[in-house]
Amino acid sequence: MKHNEGLTIRTDLAIEAKDLFSDYDHSTKDKTISMSGLKVHHVWVDEAAAETLNKRKGHYITIETNAIKKNDPDQKQNTSHVLKEVLQQLLGEKGISQDSQCLVVGLGNNYVTPDALGPSVISKLLITNHLFEYHPEYIEDHQRPVAAISPGVMGVTGIETSDVIKGVVNEMKPDFLLAIDALASRSVERVYSTIQLSDAGINPGSGIGNKRKELSEDVYGIPVISIGVPTVVDAVTITSDTIDFVFKHFGREFSEKDQPKSRLAPAQISIGEKNLTESDLPEEHTRKELFGMIGGLEEDEKRQLIQEVLTPLGHNLMVTPKEVDAYIHELSKVISDGINQALHEQSSD
Amino acid sequence: MKHNEGLTIRTDLAIEAKDLFSDYDHSTKDKTISMSGLKVHHVWVDEAAAETLNKRKGHYITIETNAIKKNDPDQKQNTSHVLKEVLQQLLGEKGISQDSQCLVVGLGNNYVTPDALGPSVISKLLITNHLFEYHPEYIEDHQRPVAAISPGVMGVTGIETSDVIKGVVNEMKPDFLLAIDALASRSVERVYSTIQLSDAGINPGSGIGNKRKELSEDVYGIPVISIGVPTVVDAVTITSDTIDFVFKHFGREFSEKDQPKSRLAPAQISIGEKNLTESDLPEEHTRKELFGMIGGLEEDEKRQLIQEVLTPLGHNLMVTPKEVDAYIHELSKVISDGINQALHEQSSD
Amino acid sequence: MKHNEGLTIRTDLAIEAKDLFSDYDHSTKDKTISMSGLKVHHVWVDEAAAETLNKRKGHYITIETNAIKKNDPDQKQNTSHVLKEVLQQLLGEKGISQDSQCLVVGLGNNYVTPDALGPSVISKLLITNHLFEYHPEYIEDHQRPVAAISPGVMGVTGIETSDVIKGVVNEMKPDFLLAIDALASRSVERVYSTIQLSDAGINPGSGIGNKRKELSEDVYGIPVISIGVPTVVDAVTITSDTIDFVFKHFGREFSEKDQPKSRLAPAQISIGEKNLTESDLPEEHTRKELFGMIGGLEEDEKRQLIQEVLTPLGHNLMVTPKEVDAYIHELSKVISDGINQALHEQSSD
Amino acid sequence: MKHNEGLTIRTDLAIEAKDLFSDYDHSTKDKTISMSGLKVHHVWVDEAAAETLNKRKGHYITIETNAIKKNDPDQKQNTSHVLKEVLQQLLGEKGISQDSQCLVVGLGNNYVTPDALGPSVISKLLITNHLFEYHPEYIEDHQRPVAAISPGVMGVTGIETSDVIKGVVNEMKPDFLLAIDALASRSVERVYSTIQLSDAGINPGSGIGNKRKELSEDVYGIPVISIGVPTVVDAVTITSDTIDFVFKHFGREFSEKDQPKSRLAPAQISIGEKNLTESDLPEEHTRKELFGMIGGLEEDEKRQLIQEVLTPLGHNLMVTPKEVDAYIHELSKVISDGINQALHEQSSD
Repeated sequence: MKHNEGLTIRTDLAIEAKDLFSDYDHSTKDKTISMSGLKVHHVWVDEAAAETLNKRKGHYITIETNAIKKNDPDQKQNTSHVLKEVLQQLLGEKGISQDSQCLVVGLGNNYVTPDALGPSVISKLLITNHLFEYHPEYIEDHQRPVAAISPGVMGVTGIETSDVIKGVVNEMKPDFLLAIDALASRSVERVYSTIQLSDAGINPGSGIGNKRKELSEDVYGIPVISIGVPTVVDAVTITSDTIDFVFKHFGREFSEKDQPKSRLAPAQISIGEKNLTESDLPEEHTRKELFGMIGGLEEDEKRQLIQEVLTPLGHNLMVTPKEVDAYIHELSKVISDGINQALHEQSSD
Repeated sequence: MKHNEGLTIRTDLAIEAKDLFSDYDHSTKDKTISMSGLKVHHVWVDEAAAETLNKRKGHYITIETNAIKKNDPDQKQNTSHVLKEVLQQLLGEKGISQDSQCLVVGLGNNYVTPDALGPSVISKLLITNHLFEYHPEYIEDHQRPVAAISPGVMGVTGIETSDVIKGVVNEMKPDFLLAIDALASRSVERVYSTIQLSDAGINPGSGIGNKRKELSEDVYGIPVISIGVPTVVDAVTITSDTIDFVFKHFGREFSEKDQPKSRLAPAQISIGEKNLTESDLPEEHTRKELFGMIGGLEEDEKRQLIQEVLTPLGHNLMVTPKEVDAYIHELSKVISDGINQALHEQSSD
Repeated sequence: MKHNEGLTIRTDLAIEAKDLFSDYDHSTKDKTISMSGLKVHHVWVDEAAAETLNKRKGHYITIETNAIKKNDPDQKQNTSHVLKEVLQQLLGEKGISQDSQCLVVGLGNNYVTPDALGPSVISKLLITNHLFEYHPEYIEDHQRPVAAISPGVMGVTGIETSDVIKGVVNEMKPDFLLAIDALASRSVERVYSTIQLSDAGINPGSGIGNKRKELSEDVYGIPVISIGVPTVVDAVTITSDTIDFVFKHFGREFSEKDQPKSRLAPAQISIGEKNLTESDLPEEHTRKELFGMIGGLEEDEKRQLIQEVLTPLGHNLMVTPKEVDAYIHELSKVISDGINQALHEQSSD
Repeated sequence: MKHNEGLTIRTDLAIEAKDLFSDYDHSTKDKTISMSGLKVHHVWVDEAAAETLNKRKGHYITIETNAIKKNDPDQKQNTSHVLKEVLQQLLGEKGISQDSQCLVVGLGNNYVTPDALGPSVISKLLITNHLFEYHPEYIEDHQRPVAAISPGVMGVTGIETSDVIKGVVNEMKPDFLLAIDALASRSVERVYSTIQLSDAGINPGSGIGNKRKELSEDVYGIPVISIGVPTVVDAVTITSDTIDFVFKHFGREFSEKDQPKSRLAPAQISIGEKNLTESDLPEEHTRKELFGMIGGLEEDEKRQLIQEVLTPLGHNLMVTPKEVDAYIHELSKVISDGINQALHEQSSD
């Protein structure tokens, strides 16, 4: 797939960004494993890839889970466990020791439910930092000092979120930052079902087109680990994804005519396997037959076209599933459980 | 536009239903007027149309407003005022007198923000019914007895909502019911910007495909007035609307090549005028050129195709704008203001 | 203790009412046992006692627990278990069978935190009634049909709560009612630490002096079981209790002077044993020495005096501990767990 | 009144502290005026008084209002107006200019309703600081840069609140701080009816006995203005106040026997005049007759005695009126209105 130079790739998820580029070298930099039944993707963005993908250099690890959408108690527990494991590995790679001091930052707006993931996670964490100073008798052996703040969003505070955090870091001098954020997704499927961990730092609001000061090791002088989950998606994405689903649906119908029934019927496609690869899509001439000129467009051209039509009309809504209250509540429990285990319990390695 | 017999038209808004049918006689049954700067549509569904449209017989009046999406204080006040006027007219047509007793029913689930419109409106109403019995000294001349309940939803209560209301009606014996509900829309534009009033009764949950017992004069033996606002929309609608916006965009581009620049450029289309009529769309051969086979489909065929692809994949999400908390809060203030004025103040006629 | 005829005993808790009367025959009608480490009192109010105590005839069972105030996870689990046991016994005594249909009523105002216990419990119950009709395949063997409503309070709905429930009962025709309510207490200690179950029916709001229509078997024709927990207390009670604590404190100091140190020092009085009996209090002449004329008053005379002073000043505040949000949240989890186990699980007898 | 040296005076309100000392020179340092019908007290604590009163040196201005308890719309508007006036005067005295940059700090715990005043006020402020940098076109002439944060409480964040604020101040470099806090009161009457403004700095949590780092000009190097309202009161205060009300009640009864009826009957005592002065109380021998030994104690001895009895029993509850949700909501609207007017509008002087 040739990259359209004029486009800016805008997504919070590295796994989405890299799928958009044909010259990204998947063979050497990607790894997908299974942990407790969940798919875990590891993407390493080096300096060269960083420029191509418009993503910061670093590790990007994504956990795929249906726990929230299915409201499945066992999967929730699994997801917390996998999150703990992945987070501990990432802490290990950054050389962060078992007793180093952590400041957790819950990004987002507590009064906007789909953006309240960060503050909601914060409210469920086991906070111990003050006990180390004032009540050391309550501290157990495997616990570390953990503090947490919800710095709010600039539209509400009037201050750059990065500056609020920088001020607190300067006073408190923690050993590392752990930032939790709700993200925008370029894929309907990933909403509430992908947890991304990274050590690359983040730009708050970048997924919805706001340019804010970054949260990164460059700015704070200490490692910054982030945990993000997409909670919103825009109308461009919904439409573009749907057109692709229609392509895929018909592509399979076409191929089924000529071939033995070697493939799943559309209704049986499992959610975890959606990411369309070129081979899933019908040939270009078939796509054009189905969708005319639109069918002949590349992924990013198609998105750009849709965006150019919707945006001036004010119709490129950023939306969230109607179950947003329950999803944020359950997701924040899953993530806070994983973090509490990772920060306060002995590594299972 | 020929109706595809196999399709079920599923929408909570009569104004959407009637647009789907070419044999609906617009000339005699529709009326659009302007009140305080807002468009107000009146649709009368008689028995013949009721069958065609799959809507109950009765008056359906829709108020179009951008007050919520624009967060415009003046428009909010206007909208409350127009709602009051339209509600008082409807009460007048039903022969409901100034001092008759009203039971307001706030439908929906208070724990699911986009479905909490009804309970939220209820919480802001001026309740006077008990004062008439216990503290008549607090009652002012122009006030009537108003009571209000939030019956919940069947998934939470285990009881048909219609039965809960029937029980309360039998005990309280009000003169008429006023039911407030959050609706599903078949149009991205109408979400949070259309207020529908009707005397036709309602089927809770019908817009999202649930079959519940109806709330109607047939069931309760007293007039049932409903006020509904669409707060959610599904992925099928978003995609279908977007494809139409693309058609319209290119249709104008095509026509602009051949004709003098007599029409607005796409970027200037005002939001209030979106409802596509046949003449706005490009010719069928142009649509096919742009969108292939999909372009050749009628509106309802296109929706059905998209639905058939998305539903088995679990991707026909029902979504709401990410600003759902603020929108429900503001909308419930606008509607409760209008109701309080209509029920307790002297008619301005 | 002689009863002052002119006083109205006003308390939601039978265990408090009976302590106020010297002619209540404790020997035959009271029973206190220990279950899973918690004290459980059983009071049987017969027709004669009903008149004396100004309480309805029936069983009144109180469970004493520090689970909420201590935020103790083990005690919370114990409390849910004991509640389950006591509730199942009460259901057994009323001849309510394992598969009979239950309507749970969450009394109180969801927008007033200390009064939101009922609605909060309701929101955590396992609701199955609709599944028996629409999805019997989801029902497990030991489950019964359970429905639940939150009828609101008259100040908000404009309708007598008893009438709302009567209407729903008439439509749904359940086999029995289970009503959950937040109560007022005449004792600081009981707030958030006493759970009262009864089959005697209830008068909503009676503890705070409002006269509402009753919820009882007489009204509905089916058994009415109630579960109540005191969440508020008035300034009269706080003052009166405190004066008693001071008496008790000095009474012990006095007695310690003359006697061997056979009794606990005041600081060691366990919370569960507070209810002052005559023998705990110092002699009347000692009380007068300490507290003058006030010291010579009987319990109810003292309360009446304080009330007569505070009420005209507007200072007889009804208050709740400042931790009200967390207490209501945790308490509603404990109670809903107990109810879910009692209604849906096999009896442990 | 002689001061008992052993006692620590613990109150957030200067007006309460000074009433406890007989050697405080009221004649030269106090001033009470009426503004828009509300009483406004000004107390100046100089260095000598600071030591006596255990309060910081500075201005303490209290506004007395029944707006919240009476839910009176006109009084709410008056209260906002008086708050604006007093705040502007205080800003003037500190030499803070019309266009200087303000950081508002909403102290307290957003998840504990009676402690959520600060965060609740913050959420209703007009925030302009970021607009000065990013969207100066939206700024109107009379507006100044205002930013706002809710730093949380140490039990939830694990960090000293003073340190969080110091960090933000160091990054943002505002010209002055405005801190909003919920207080504890030593008087039942002041709860939700006294607004205290001060330039003396504050110690978060001091009213409930926690020792936290201070928020003051000494720490931050810029003026610190605070606005506090008592929202909680303890059982000691309720009891002590009630005993005083009983004294006063009987004191007047006694005096009425001997004198012409020149005084108000107890039931007509206006709320604004409660603060008992020595002359209101009956003579010591009368107090002893009424209340025995307790009646002979000084105010602070009585409180200490009650506290010594209640505290070991765990019964010195910190409580709040049961209407806490509505009170905090309305109070935060009144205060945010006053602040918005004071910070963004032209002085009315």
